[in-house]
Amino acid sequence: MAAPVSVSPTPLLKDELDIVIPTIRNLDFLEMWRPFFQPYHLIIVQDGDPSKTIKVPDGFDYELYNRNDINRILGPKASCISFKDSACRCFGYMVSKKKYIYTIDDDCFVANDPAGKPINALEQHIKNLLSPSTPFFFNTLYDPFREGADFVRGYPFSLREGVPTAASHGLWLNIPDYDAPTQLVKPLERNTRYVDMVLTIPKGTLFPMCGMNLAFHRDLIGPAMYFGLMGDGQPIGRYDDMWAGWCSKVICDHLGLGIKTGLPYIFHSKASNPFVNLRKEYKGIFWQEEIIPFFQNVLIPKECTTVQKCYLELSKQVKEKLSKVDPYFDKLADAMVTWIEAWDELNPPAGAAKPNGKA
Amino acid sequence: MAAPVSVSPTPLLKDELDIVIPTIRNLDFLEMWRPFFQPYHLIIVQDGDPSKTIKVPDGFDYELYNRNDINRILGPKASCISFKDSACRCFGYMVSKKKYIYTIDDDCFVANDPAGKPINALEQHIKNLLSPSTPFFFNTLYDPFREGADFVRGYPFSLREGVPTAASHGLWLNIPDYDAPTQLVKPLERNTRYVDMVLTIPKGTLFPMCGMNLAFHRDLIGPAMYFGLMGDGQPIGRYDDMWAGWCSKVICDHLGLGIKTGLPYIFHSKASNPFVNLRKEYKGIFWQEEIIPFFQNVLIPKECTTVQKCYLELSKQVKEKLSKVDPYFDKLADAMVTWIEAWDELNPPAGAAKPNGKA
Repeated sequence: MAAPVSVSPTPLLKDELDIVIPTIRNLDFLEMWRPFFQPYHLIIVQDGDPSKTIKVPDGFDYELYNRNDINRILGPKASCISFKDSACRCFGYMVSKKKYIYTIDDDCFVANDPAGKPINALEQHIKNLLSPSTPFFFNTLYDPFREGADFVRGYPFSLREGVPTAASHGLWLNIPDYDAPTQLVKPLERNTRYVDMVLTIPKGTLFPMCGMNLAFHRDLIGPAMYFGLMGDGQPIGRYDDMWAGWCSKVICDHLGLGIKTGLPYIFHSKASNPFVNLRKEYKGIFWQEEIIPFFQNVLIPKECTTVQKCYLELSKQVKEKLSKVDPYFDKLADAMVTWIEAWDELNPPAGAAKPNGKA
Repeated sequence: MAAPVSVSPTPLLKDELDIVIPTIRNLDFLEMWRPFFQPYHLIIVQDGDPSKTIKVPDGFDYELYNRNDINRILGPKASCISFKDSACRCFGYMVSKKKYIYTIDDDCFVANDPAGKPINALEQHIKNLLSPSTPFFFNTLYDPFREGADFVRGYPFSLREGVPTAASHGLWLNIPDYDAPTQLVKPLERNTRYVDMVLTIPKGTLFPMCGMNLAFHRDLIGPAMYFGLMGDGQPIGRYDDMWAGWCSKVICDHLGLGIKTGLPYIFHSKASNPFVNLRKEYKGIFWQEEIIPFFQNVLIPKECTTVQKCYLELSKQVKEKLSKVDPYFDKLADAMVTWIEAWDELNPPAGAAKPNGKA
């Protein structure tokens, strides 16, 4: 019988959560989210030209980093942070000192639930993160920790305590997160189906993690949330969140942590240009056919007991096994090591890596 | 890009599907389902005293089997069919000559969708069975073959064809399918959440399959849908569908077939007595702690290319590894072999076992 986690009011966690946003081009964005975001500290990571200024409406508590700041803070290690691509947001994960991160794109607005009520996405993410995950066995009524649900007949009692939740992957109404080929074929398709559900992605199963509406437990999984090398000077784009998703999922599986997907929804307002997307994606579309089997078969030795150790081990295997796909992966593997070095520099190890779930 | 499977009207499959019901105690049951069930042939398997008669309202096409019929048809092999337990329903799977089976309990009524419209459960099961499954990678918008959905960015193109769907597991509004301890602790809990979703249970993940509202492709997976030895003379009950679920899932994983769960809902009208349930279940509650790891780790050799071969291999491993849990499993392993012998007798092999998905 699950503890009635969601019966008590969801804590705000306002001193424990940072919102990370990769450039704000849309002036309405923060105004729309004001009722929900204003209590929190924002970290804005500007992805392009540092001479351009980003306007933040009054009343928000924020810090803003542009490329010059990233270069100044990380020195030569700044090479691991993408330029002119929203993948640069992961710099924000690194400089945050909070326990939880929520990241969202500036074309994502407040969605309404089927009753027409605006959805407080952050509140649902916090619910998801604060209740356990159940990766070892599927519960047919989905998240057993939601109000009105529980474990069904046949669910082993020894697994009902669950494991700590490392990430909460939210979804999108309106414009679905399709790849360029699907966008081109179905330009008018809109996601109108509100699925009132949260579930744990089972152990051993990979999923396409989208960075548009994503929350995670920084202390538990932060160092695995590297968004890779995308954008300026790189052969691909739009695989930043996918890369972080594959890496963090295999590390969660190894460390006994959970990832949930489902609620909350945001309203994704604008489809990105499918022609531009195709140019960014096309190598990834080939490469993922080899990357996915790589991650499906990756074995992390049991000596790897922290996220950092797991991540460095992954970088080694990426170099060994994916460099033959394209020299890009050799560069990416090096950047993964640099990322961890930079992370540990900004987050001295005593305070980082607590895979046992304690704060 | 998924084929728009659900755009064309769902075929009735009335000459290809049998409805199997394990005794009808409730006279309203068939009246309520008449608009949806009347086109189909019913197979009713009476679980108790053969001298009692079951009333079937006019207008239904049905055959009815009681214990005397089972004994007459199977001879000594009738020992594999449970007595005084709804697990006897699997006899109906064996005598059917159709490609698909839908099985439902007599306390399951027509549910309404959130708009108040009666749900044609069978139509949704047919949709689920006729569209492919995607067990190798999780799609965050769930079943990509539903109207208005597709594969999301980052889903490997090589996996988008999917695999044949072997089973469709439907859910229950009102009384949830809880075990006796949960029933005792939460006697008033009702499932009111309509989750508008179908998903494939990923490869390598087990789930608690409930027999209340279940459809399957008999040609693809029928011989694995054995409901075990329950009820009269047996030490447990209420694990019949679980057993079939564990066995069929590992066999589907081995043969590259899919199982979906989610829609359709039925309205489960009546909670069974938790005290009676506790007596039936308590050994199973202990045993499942060893059975689940057994099934999680089971390896079926690649020589096993038909459901029957896989099932006989499973029976061998059950005898080897679970008999030490309780002598019951020794008996069950023998019954599994008898079940396959009886299946092949009633379904001469030339017509049975078509793991390639062709009719």
